[in-house]
Amino acid sequence: MNRRKFIKGASVAGGATAIAASTFPAPAFAQKRIEITMVATWGRDFPGLGTGAQRFAKRLSDMTDGRMNVKYYAANERVKAFDSFDEVASGNAQMYHAADYYWKGKHPGWAYFTAVPFGFVFSEINSWINFGGGQELWDELAGSFGLKCLACGNTGVQMGGWFRKEINSADDLKGLKMRIPGLGGDVMAKLGASPVSLPGGQIYEALISGAIDATEWVGPWNDSFYKFYEAAKYYYYPGMHEPASMLSLGMNKSWWEGLSNSDQLVIKAASHAENDVMMSEYNAKNGFYLEKLIREQGVLLRRFNDDVYDAFGEAAEDVFSEARAHSNLAERIHASFVKTRQEVGSWMNISDQEYLRQRNRVLGVT
Amino acid sequence: MNRRKFIKGASVAGGATAIAASTFPAPAFAQKRIEITMVATWGRDFPGLGTGAQRFAKRLSDMTDGRMNVKYYAANERVKAFDSFDEVASGNAQMYHAADYYWKGKHPGWAYFTAVPFGFVFSEINSWINFGGGQELWDELAGSFGLKCLACGNTGVQMGGWFRKEINSADDLKGLKMRIPGLGGDVMAKLGASPVSLPGGQIYEALISGAIDATEWVGPWNDSFYKFYEAAKYYYYPGMHEPASMLSLGMNKSWWEGLSNSDQLVIKAASHAENDVMMSEYNAKNGFYLEKLIREQGVLLRRFNDDVYDAFGEAAEDVFSEARAHSNLAERIHASFVKTRQEVGSWMNISDQEYLRQRNRVLGVT
Repeated sequence: MNRRKFIKGASVAGGATAIAASTFPAPAFAQKRIEITMVATWGRDFPGLGTGAQRFAKRLSDMTDGRMNVKYYAANERVKAFDSFDEVASGNAQMYHAADYYWKGKHPGWAYFTAVPFGFVFSEINSWINFGGGQELWDELAGSFGLKCLACGNTGVQMGGWFRKEINSADDLKGLKMRIPGLGGDVMAKLGASPVSLPGGQIYEALISGAIDATEWVGPWNDSFYKFYEAAKYYYYPGMHEPASMLSLGMNKSWWEGLSNSDQLVIKAASHAENDVMMSEYNAKNGFYLEKLIREQGVLLRRFNDDVYDAFGEAAEDVFSEARAHSNLAERIHASFVKTRQEVGSWMNISDQEYLRQRNRVLGVT
Repeated sequence: MNRRKFIKGASVAGGATAIAASTFPAPAFAQKRIEITMVATWGRDFPGLGTGAQRFAKRLSDMTDGRMNVKYYAANERVKAFDSFDEVASGNAQMYHAADYYWKGKHPGWAYFTAVPFGFVFSEINSWINFGGGQELWDELAGSFGLKCLACGNTGVQMGGWFRKEINSADDLKGLKMRIPGLGGDVMAKLGASPVSLPGGQIYEALISGAIDATEWVGPWNDSFYKFYEAAKYYYYPGMHEPASMLSLGMNKSWWEGLSNSDQLVIKAASHAENDVMMSEYNAKNGFYLEKLIREQGVLLRRFNDDVYDAFGEAAEDVFSEARAHSNLAERIHASFVKTRQEVGSWMNISDQEYLRQRNRVLGVT
């Protein structure tokens, strides 16, 4: 006998009894155990990204009382970081936690679902995903690779990077060897820099040895641990390249489609929770660590000026032209992104941005 | 026989069988049905606030496959809006959805858990609640009234309000009868205005008849439906009084404490989900409706200037002094709020605010 049916039967029989005894408790609900293997592109306990992915895995197990039994593997514990995609697409694992722009070599559309230069802040990318057609386009892209993805965390606005010298004009970027991946790196290349892609763990050595002149990573919280300030004192803001990197819960599409509606909703709610909580954590910790970097390490905080930003803007348009030319889907993703950036962006001007400016000016928050 | 035990027994018996047959499915999980009565301070299908509360109730039912059976009552369907507090504190209902500043008459600390003048934007209040000690203080305050509260939605930055005439200095506020509740109203009173508290449905009539000269409500999306533009054409931004109103899922504390850990986590995840989704929806729709108001209704968008903001700032300090003087708990809530506002606020200056300013300047997003 199928046990699930047996228990359901028991429950229904109980329900019939309940008609005679109205104080009798309502029927219990029985659901089957689901084993989930989850891989991630982050090292074990890496602050923010790794701890957030681990928190998601634990939340999903705990909120189902272990019924969804998530076995979490950090990078290299089961597969290498960038093999997470194939591991889940093939069905060897059910879930990954990653930044989907890692897969932009497979299709440039993936970049838009993490962050692109001159892209969305946190509030904006959520509006796009939930109400601007973003999820539908993500489903189309991911579906073509056998995946289903959900927003599951965000780093918020990233810093522009660590430089050995001041950047006062776009000319100062020429010839610079800088660690900056993705479309942001392509923007730097248009301006005459030489973008280099390096995993986090190798950046410090490259910077100290002079193999690279500059690097970006995430923000004050994450950057503190890598001690980039020992080789490059100038810390620039704001980054144009990743204004709010959305992290992705990628799932095997067939597996996802085989789940019950309620199990899908449980996973969705857990993803929304991590999206909410990880962003809170980054904002809570970045201010504290920035202050510490300045006070204890003598880091020199610098703002990219308008001339530099204008140059970034022109270069970004060129980079986007190339991404859009890839395919009809890339063009549609770009068009949808631009529409939301215009609509929500114009609202941001008079809401968050202007309020923060006025409040911080009046209170002297600097 | 207790049915729950019976089903658990069936499940355990099956588990024992599974030892002998390893391909046999793992034991199913049985949990008991939970009946939840939820009341709200919003009218049925009120856009944003009401639809968000209803979405939360549906999500909780659906993600548990009806095991948590939420019966939702909009304002006046079971109790009047402002009776929601007593209904849940007394245990007549298990949950409310409300803005907790409605209870500031019971304790001024409640205001901080929705929005206060010169308070938090969305990212900041979440940082405070999740990582800055906010939840613990909320638990202390709510617990003393027999409640447990969770963040469950947000309106984002609210508009400054609808005025019949331009506001070019703080003097222009003198003698103005304005519908503005809460501590924001207290700030206006310090500047010589006469704040009035009116429920949403009565504002339009008061404005048209001249009983009031000005009103604030929420933002372009919500405000559109009330047609305030027919009586007051000047629409000011940004509001200093509610920079991101956090909505609250209030629960009966004894009931909450009687739930299993996993059931508490399911409710928490559903709350986080609504927090994430409602903010997305407000930001997605406010830009669209603002544009429509300007184009179709000839609304005149105006920015409060620095002089007006300086006056708001001074008045807000006076209002806070009064709130803090109430009790030790009020003082501790205020101190914690100020600490996070300084720490996260200084980070906002160089992250979201400066990035949005530069991006929108370069792209010409206005």
